[in-house]
Amino acid sequence: MSASSVSKPNVAIVGVTGAVGQEFLRVLEQRDFPTGKVRMLASARSAGKNVTFRDKTYPVEELTDESFRGIDLALFSAGASISKKFAPIASEAGATVVDNSSAFRMTEGIPLVVPEVNREAVEGIELGKGGIIANPNCSTIIMLVPVTPIHRAVGVKRLVVSTYQAASGAGAAAMAELEQQTREVLDGKVPTCRIFKQQYAFNLFSHNTEIGPEGYNTEEMKMVKETHKIWGQPIGITATCVRVPVMRAHAESINITLRKPMSAEQAREILSKAPGVSLIDDRANNRFPTPLDATGKDDVYVGRIRVDISHPGHCAGDSVCGQGLDIFVCGDQLRKGAALNAVQIAELLLDKVPANA
Amino acid sequence: MSASSVSKPNVAIVGVTGAVGQEFLRVLEQRDFPTGKVRMLASARSAGKNVTFRDKTYPVEELTDESFRGIDLALFSAGASISKKFAPIASEAGATVVDNSSAFRMTEGIPLVVPEVNREAVEGIELGKGGIIANPNCSTIIMLVPVTPIHRAVGVKRLVVSTYQAASGAGAAAMAELEQQTREVLDGKVPTCRIFKQQYAFNLFSHNTEIGPEGYNTEEMKMVKETHKIWGQPIGITATCVRVPVMRAHAESINITLRKPMSAEQAREILSKAPGVSLIDDRANNRFPTPLDATGKDDVYVGRIRVDISHPGHCAGDSVCGQGLDIFVCGDQLRKGAALNAVQIAELLLDKVPANA
Repeated sequence: MSASSVSKPNVAIVGVTGAVGQEFLRVLEQRDFPTGKVRMLASARSAGKNVTFRDKTYPVEELTDESFRGIDLALFSAGASISKKFAPIASEAGATVVDNSSAFRMTEGIPLVVPEVNREAVEGIELGKGGIIANPNCSTIIMLVPVTPIHRAVGVKRLVVSTYQAASGAGAAAMAELEQQTREVLDGKVPTCRIFKQQYAFNLFSHNTEIGPEGYNTEEMKMVKETHKIWGQPIGITATCVRVPVMRAHAESINITLRKPMSAEQAREILSKAPGVSLIDDRANNRFPTPLDATGKDDVYVGRIRVDISHPGHCAGDSVCGQGLDIFVCGDQLRKGAALNAVQIAELLLDKVPANA
Repeated sequence: MSASSVSKPNVAIVGVTGAVGQEFLRVLEQRDFPTGKVRMLASARSAGKNVTFRDKTYPVEELTDESFRGIDLALFSAGASISKKFAPIASEAGATVVDNSSAFRMTEGIPLVVPEVNREAVEGIELGKGGIIANPNCSTIIMLVPVTPIHRAVGVKRLVVSTYQAASGAGAAAMAELEQQTREVLDGKVPTCRIFKQQYAFNLFSHNTEIGPEGYNTEEMKMVKETHKIWGQPIGITATCVRVPVMRAHAESINITLRKPMSAEQAREILSKAPGVSLIDDRANNRFPTPLDATGKDDVYVGRIRVDISHPGHCAGDSVCGQGLDIFVCGDQLRKGAALNAVQIAELLLDKVPANA
């Protein structure tokens, strides 16, 4: 395969009709990602539908063992079982896979990448030469983009995070269910519960993933284990993941215990320069990040940056140092939490190709 | 004043037309609180309206300096400035005041009471003999009902709490605004923002109270300072208070660092017997407390009880001990967070009167 063909890679989107699949198309277009041939893949159920990309209509094809012939880059977001089966087939056929599912995240030898955090992990992988790269869980990505610059500066000792997660994390059908339930509740009707077992409209609940032996749900353990892998350090982390009636951006309240003290000003200074981070931290006007601020945006928004007053002997006020920090962040679950991060990973591979190849 | 008159105290409700005022009436009725004469008080704006209590209609009277003659118990929920002005007048006139506002919570000599936690603080106060007792902030109450039994058992060293607060905390108009905004958003209209400065429907935001010099908002500092006063100990506490699009029950994700280790089973055992606490902690079926579970209920619901795995050297599994715990709680903001707790305080005073007096 020649270098020139890979500078405009042939791309397959697996799960193109889903919420993240659709976002893949928007992100590729908005970022002017160079593409040769594009194949739109989904389950037999969706085959025959059409999707639009760069003002062109594409038929959705059924995902099969033959789907990856001549494909250089395959972006997967069709669930872990599809990835487990088809990502190795795609890789074998020469496609470099960026997988948005949890299938390979914790597999040894598979890089788990947030470009702002550990871009070096893709070393040795070339577009069109196979290989699988895993895209972390949305909540992990949205936490690590702002917390990593602080970790680099003074070292993070422990994280206590509580999430406020949007419907989109459970897919397009869950977003539709939240809307339908909300209409039903406003009309005095009993809300329809299909995706979730309980009322979501005007309510919230602990993340609907299986609870493990330690009492943590799968989403929470992803935040713990994926962070350990991405940072390469077994930092103490506890997470409480909660689904709130918001459409497509997650929020997280993050309490950070530091190895060396840092002031709120220092944290603000570091975060204001951090890649992929935007500050909304206006104490005077009580304006801090909200899910709507982050919706459709690429950056993770950070605010409520303050010294944690709970530590013994903490120093009062902003300008002095503390053993801990509290921050509040919002990020678009479908973009930085999924499609954007995956495309940014693919861009790391493009960057290796000379611009005029 | 004779003992018999105080066993059926004459009661004034200040702010009776508000969300908490209305809840006062429901709670007094449901708990069969003995009342003599009842006066319904509010601002001049509401005077002339009628309210219903025990199937009787009462006129709402304008609150004046003369409102408390012959009143034994005055339940206030009309905002801090009304309490600052009228609670001393009521007390001077012989009414014992239970004040739901923040006006006197941190005043030295004024008891700040959660009956399950520090009922001894009302010692020396008698119905009909004046005095002011402060009702804590809703978020503080909902946290302390479940955390205090753990504190009593092994000692709490530090608390990291993130809240998910309902509209009701900002009053009946805020609840109406959430409903109106939600209808508008579903209809594709621009949501009307009157009470809150930003969209609340399908969104969430940092609690809309003033930010102090340390970067904490007033709601957060209430949780810190009121807990210090109620427990009588300056425990390390950090709080992040967030308003979510839920109607009337608050949720809180509470991370507890312990002085002595405790297992999840021990915590579950203690909480299952704790007054004012109900468990919803079904890991197999992923059923944990939600705001809807707590709505209209008296108890604080607790679940997600687990050993915090973030501490160095924590022991795995449920049956072994940990330096910390994570719990998730929900409580009705208008009931245990406000009206119910205030009426329970008044009941502590009733209890002092011989049953047949």
